[in-house]
Amino acid sequence: MLRAAVVLCGCGRADGSEITESVATLIHLSRKLVKVRCFAPSGPQKHVVNHLTGNEEPGSRDMLVEAARIARGEIESLEKLEPRSFDMLVFPGGFGAAKNLCSFATEGVHMTVRDDIAKLIRAFHKARKPMGFVCIAPIIAAKVLGTQSADKPGPGLTITLGIDVKGQNQAAGAVTMFGNTHRNAGTREAITDTANLIVSTPAYMIDSAEPFDVFEGIGVMVNSLTQLAAAQQAKPPKQAS
Amino acid sequence: MLRAAVVLCGCGRADGSEITESVATLIHLSRKLVKVRCFAPSGPQKHVVNHLTGNEEPGSRDMLVEAARIARGEIESLEKLEPRSFDMLVFPGGFGAAKNLCSFATEGVHMTVRDDIAKLIRAFHKARKPMGFVCIAPIIAAKVLGTQSADKPGPGLTITLGIDVKGQNQAAGAVTMFGNTHRNAGTREAITDTANLIVSTPAYMIDSAEPFDVFEGIGVMVNSLTQLAAAQQAKPPKQAS
Repeated sequence: MLRAAVVLCGCGRADGSEITESVATLIHLSRKLVKVRCFAPSGPQKHVVNHLTGNEEPGSRDMLVEAARIARGEIESLEKLEPRSFDMLVFPGGFGAAKNLCSFATEGVHMTVRDDIAKLIRAFHKARKPMGFVCIAPIIAAKVLGTQSADKPGPGLTITLGIDVKGQNQAAGAVTMFGNTHRNAGTREAITDTANLIVSTPAYMIDSAEPFDVFEGIGVMVNSLTQLAAAQQAKPPKQAS
Repeated sequence: MLRAAVVLCGCGRADGSEITESVATLIHLSRKLVKVRCFAPSGPQKHVVNHLTGNEEPGSRDMLVEAARIARGEIESLEKLEPRSFDMLVFPGGFGAAKNLCSFATEGVHMTVRDDIAKLIRAFHKARKPMGFVCIAPIIAAKVLGTQSADKPGPGLTITLGIDVKGQNQAAGAVTMFGNTHRNAGTREAITDTANLIVSTPAYMIDSAEPFDVFEGIGVMVNSLTQLAAAQQAKPPKQAS
């Protein structure tokens, strides 16, 4: 049985994890009989947004406590996520991914990634365990594993952040600037980087996406992730040379 | 094109609408190309629950504002729901349905239903427009349309609240006491009352339910609802006799 870690960071598209994307991820992993554990960082969200008005609200909400709403209480603090206990790692999207896990929403191409998140992504990549990124979340992988990564140049990834027409998709532009290749994809598609075992799907990066489109695209992503993870498991362990 | 109204009441299983059930409802309606509008009552939830600890928390959250997280901001106040603008009505579950829309969670068989919700259910029933109820939500229909309804005896419904073994399912017992028939159903099933055009599916009323089970059961419910609604539309308008 394959084991997946899903990283959330609140509950709601404007200040946390996008709910439809998170639930679609959990449904598809359940469909493939993958054993899932959810995680989120402890600590306050970047801010709290009233989703009816779209305005920022006073007060503070905790990423882990709010994400527990999506996970029905079955969630753990991110520091408990041990890469060796999992075969794959998945990041749903939402502005939370771009505000709480990294700073793309506020700093654009000058963004930074939370240290614990960057470390996790490097660990899964090094261990050749597949990772899935939904909606805006691929920007995090692009920053950490791009050839222009400030800390340690990565291999550069092939990922999607939706459709880039005439360079107007700023997120796709950042992906390229960080030293990666951007590929256009529709909502019901996913892009698999077979060299790096990274799968991405645009979901609500496409403005016209309907819930069933998002669900289908995430289904393609999960199918690809489980295939990659099963293929990795089937490989014999490396011999000392 | 069929038109559905979906009634939410917060965001989270313990104090609002159950998130997986709500999202699965929206995905399946989108799959069937149904035009959806979401609604929730304005006003404070019965209480706020920390979904990580399960404990009640101080503070107040508004049913409509929180439900807007699930609906991505595309939601209206319940008072704007005009039955004549819709072909079907759907209630996802969650403790919110049993705390905010009626008082089953706190008063059991002595429960009452919010006046606006009872009025809506009677209006859709009278107009022969199908209604879907997920998880604990069928208890609301049972109270309003059961033969023992205090206000105005109804026809009595055939609905499911999951599995009742030896009368230990208190919700199923209440359904019977209100003057309805309870039928056992598994998570991937739905029960259709063809006389009353009421479809119910147990979802998380079954403790062992996994996200994909819940998704499948709600899919069966939505298929049945759209069939019933299409059949109603195909009928010639009633002639004056």
